[in-house]
Amino acid sequence: MKSFFGVALILLLASAVTAQRNSQLTAPYPPQLVAELKQLQEASMKSDYAWDQLAHLTNNIGPRPAGSPQANFAAQYVAGELRKLGLDVRLEKVVVPHWVRGEETASLVESPGMAPGTTQKIVLTALGGSVATPAQGITAEVVVVNDFDELAALGHDKVVGKIVLFNPRFDKQLAAVGHGGASYGQAVIYRALGASAAAKQGAIAALVRSVGGADYRLPHTGAMRYQADTPRIPAAAVTAEDADLLAYLVQQGPVRMRMVLSPQQLPDVDSYNVVADLKGSEHPEQIVIVSGHLDSWDLGTGAIDDGAGVVTAMQAAHLIKQLGLQPRRTIRVIAWMNEEFGESGALAYAAAHKNEVDKHFAAVESDLGAGHPAGISMAAPAMNMPLLRPAAQVLQSIGAAILQTTEDTETDIGPLLALGVPCFGPIQDERFYFNYHHTAADTLDKVVPRELQENAAVIAVLAYALADLPKDLQRPAPRQAAQF
Amino acid sequence: MKSFFGVALILLLASAVTAQRNSQLTAPYPPQLVAELKQLQEASMKSDYAWDQLAHLTNNIGPRPAGSPQANFAAQYVAGELRKLGLDVRLEKVVVPHWVRGEETASLVESPGMAPGTTQKIVLTALGGSVATPAQGITAEVVVVNDFDELAALGHDKVVGKIVLFNPRFDKQLAAVGHGGASYGQAVIYRALGASAAAKQGAIAALVRSVGGADYRLPHTGAMRYQADTPRIPAAAVTAEDADLLAYLVQQGPVRMRMVLSPQQLPDVDSYNVVADLKGSEHPEQIVIVSGHLDSWDLGTGAIDDGAGVVTAMQAAHLIKQLGLQPRRTIRVIAWMNEEFGESGALAYAAAHKNEVDKHFAAVESDLGAGHPAGISMAAPAMNMPLLRPAAQVLQSIGAAILQTTEDTETDIGPLLALGVPCFGPIQDERFYFNYHHTAADTLDKVVPRELQENAAVIAVLAYALADLPKDLQRPAPRQAAQF
Repeated sequence: MKSFFGVALILLLASAVTAQRNSQLTAPYPPQLVAELKQLQEASMKSDYAWDQLAHLTNNIGPRPAGSPQANFAAQYVAGELRKLGLDVRLEKVVVPHWVRGEETASLVESPGMAPGTTQKIVLTALGGSVATPAQGITAEVVVVNDFDELAALGHDKVVGKIVLFNPRFDKQLAAVGHGGASYGQAVIYRALGASAAAKQGAIAALVRSVGGADYRLPHTGAMRYQADTPRIPAAAVTAEDADLLAYLVQQGPVRMRMVLSPQQLPDVDSYNVVADLKGSEHPEQIVIVSGHLDSWDLGTGAIDDGAGVVTAMQAAHLIKQLGLQPRRTIRVIAWMNEEFGESGALAYAAAHKNEVDKHFAAVESDLGAGHPAGISMAAPAMNMPLLRPAAQVLQSIGAAILQTTEDTETDIGPLLALGVPCFGPIQDERFYFNYHHTAADTLDKVVPRELQENAAVIAVLAYALADLPKDLQRPAPRQAAQF
Repeated sequence: MKSFFGVALILLLASAVTAQRNSQLTAPYPPQLVAELKQLQEASMKSDYAWDQLAHLTNNIGPRPAGSPQANFAAQYVAGELRKLGLDVRLEKVVVPHWVRGEETASLVESPGMAPGTTQKIVLTALGGSVATPAQGITAEVVVVNDFDELAALGHDKVVGKIVLFNPRFDKQLAAVGHGGASYGQAVIYRALGASAAAKQGAIAALVRSVGGADYRLPHTGAMRYQADTPRIPAAAVTAEDADLLAYLVQQGPVRMRMVLSPQQLPDVDSYNVVADLKGSEHPEQIVIVSGHLDSWDLGTGAIDDGAGVVTAMQAAHLIKQLGLQPRRTIRVIAWMNEEFGESGALAYAAAHKNEVDKHFAAVESDLGAGHPAGISMAAPAMNMPLLRPAAQVLQSIGAAILQTTEDTETDIGPLLALGVPCFGPIQDERFYFNYHHTAADTLDKVVPRELQENAAVIAVLAYALADLPKDLQRPAPRQAAQF
């Protein structure tokens, strides 16, 4: 080991180098802007506004699936609260699908070593968009595959007339070290596309191991998509435990299962994005979106997905007003409708505003819960980094000073990114988010009040900094895939 | 701080004192017995026997509530497996109640801020023994109390015609520091006695906050008891989240809830304790019981409660046979029936064997899951400690060398303790047990294979040491309360 003085000298030199590099990489803000950002950060950490709004959305209104009366009631409620703040609020129409869950039960009716005359319960939940089984249910043998290759290897003869379980494991270790989103991404493809892949081989129903990290016999729902050219078969998620049980039993002999799902696809419903402007003083025509999505899945009350995103955006507007601040550009709070069931709110907004894309200076969305924030992610050219650094420095006292660039952004602002709008979001602790995601346990208690305040601070500081940024941002290249 | 040499000298002296005290407090075993105990410990850590049996009980047979065909099928299965080992097996009759769960649904039909025309789901599960609601359910206002004092303070006028929620919190911090059982003990009284207390004040149904530490919208069932002199009202456990929701809403205004429970109390059923003797070579008339209970709750598959207790007892017999060992006293493996629903198996055994109590040298039961064992607990006079210490020392290599005396013991051997039989069990990690206890998530995956082996090692070493103990144990004083 080096001597104390040697180590100290190295640290001193390193520190000088870092300071010099930081100053090169930082585009300073006017002192007043820094002071205002600090005010916002401090006020965010003292405010109960976001928490109280989240409690109301989740506890008083409850689950808010797209197309439900609760979702539209929530849109009216949020619009009313934003009007109370003095914002210019409108409801922009979005047509949403209206799928409603029905009965969902299943049991083993034959399996190795079973007591004669008995059955064993299987816990499952229909995937969003699934068709129903016949009223008497489906009773068939279960085959278990870990991936699409194993399904293909089985082939039509071993799959036809059966129930296919896709059993990919959610990588808990990857989530535990901070990459919950990556774990999710690896497994979710079977939830989204498994049913049609199974149907192509002649399966009459599809199951998927729940995409999530918990082990509390808790099924995770989520959207799935039928391919146009395959029969639409019922699809459900089983809990991790039930997937393990089925995988264990099929190795010993034939397993037959009965499942009943009675969801209904009702006629489409008129719903709304809530769009609320806090007018800019110098460039009112330039828009900085700050947003979350208001719809939730139907099983839980949508506290982490994505009540938290909506209320932190609301709190940003609340605090800017409360502190008497006036942003240079317009801050537009949006509570998106129907992120979960085909992102029709995002697409409707992009279509309605496509001729004003160049007036969208930036867009922010939070849609990964309310875990401790570590900083800000940016989907835009890296050369913008110095412009963000003073804002990040304001967030260092709450541990959120990291700046990262990402390829992609959250779903609702994805169409705007594709059109060339710089997009931003908080970097969050995602170790636990997917334990609760799309389950009945996505409820208010999963949010830690202090962490919600930290997230609200990131959103408020980020939104206000973007609105008052002394220079323009470099915009990302529009993507060819964007079609509206 | 003392100098290095000073500290070393103190440690050296302390170590000498400890060694001397330990030798005074240890009654040495014959070298051959120590060698045999080490063989058993090592073989336990290599064996898959307990795991495979646990997988069969939980996955192949499934939930085993008292009175169910699965419970009796499991008794036959365990008897068959123990016969395969060469034990002298009999099924001793136990009459058990047969309560079966039915529909259990609930929803808020009126609460502050609710969207017009909507309801919000409440997740609950009937308590074992609960009567049903009328077929159309009960719809009534909810009142929330934290304890019996608050119920009494409300009084008849504010409770009559309502649904009472008892909302005592399971102390998660106490569980986290290792005292899960104490947390459970503090809260479970409301599950057991809440319904009659509420009925006395005129309530028409009772709810209790689930007694457990998890936060996954998971209700914990369990037994409850009606008092003879009060109306029998339906009783259910709500999840922690639903309890929080109700407590939040009732502070804002009237909350009305509809609940439907349709459990049935069917006629009593003949069932069995499985009793299997591995005859002693010198004192075959002296009995050392090693046991767990075979019945489980109906929601999960009873891996931790208490498949683990049954299979570790089975593995003890398996390994003694496999190693060609012969205990001096008889080792009696018992798989108890109906611990959960009034312990009728334990009472039937005590009644049937009450004239042979003095032949019961000791009794062991494991019924707190399969968490890492830290040692052995003993409900018997502390002066027996030196007799157990050499056995504990054999377990030190797996971290299970602690010896502790306790006032009480596990339920099924409780009647024997009351009659003066020394009782023993493993000391286990109880930090997580009550997250899964009495829930649908009590499944095989909650058991860590290595920890099951460790527990099996403790049970095997303890049982064999007791069977070969060179001296008699001091017996606890019989308790007056014992009545059979």
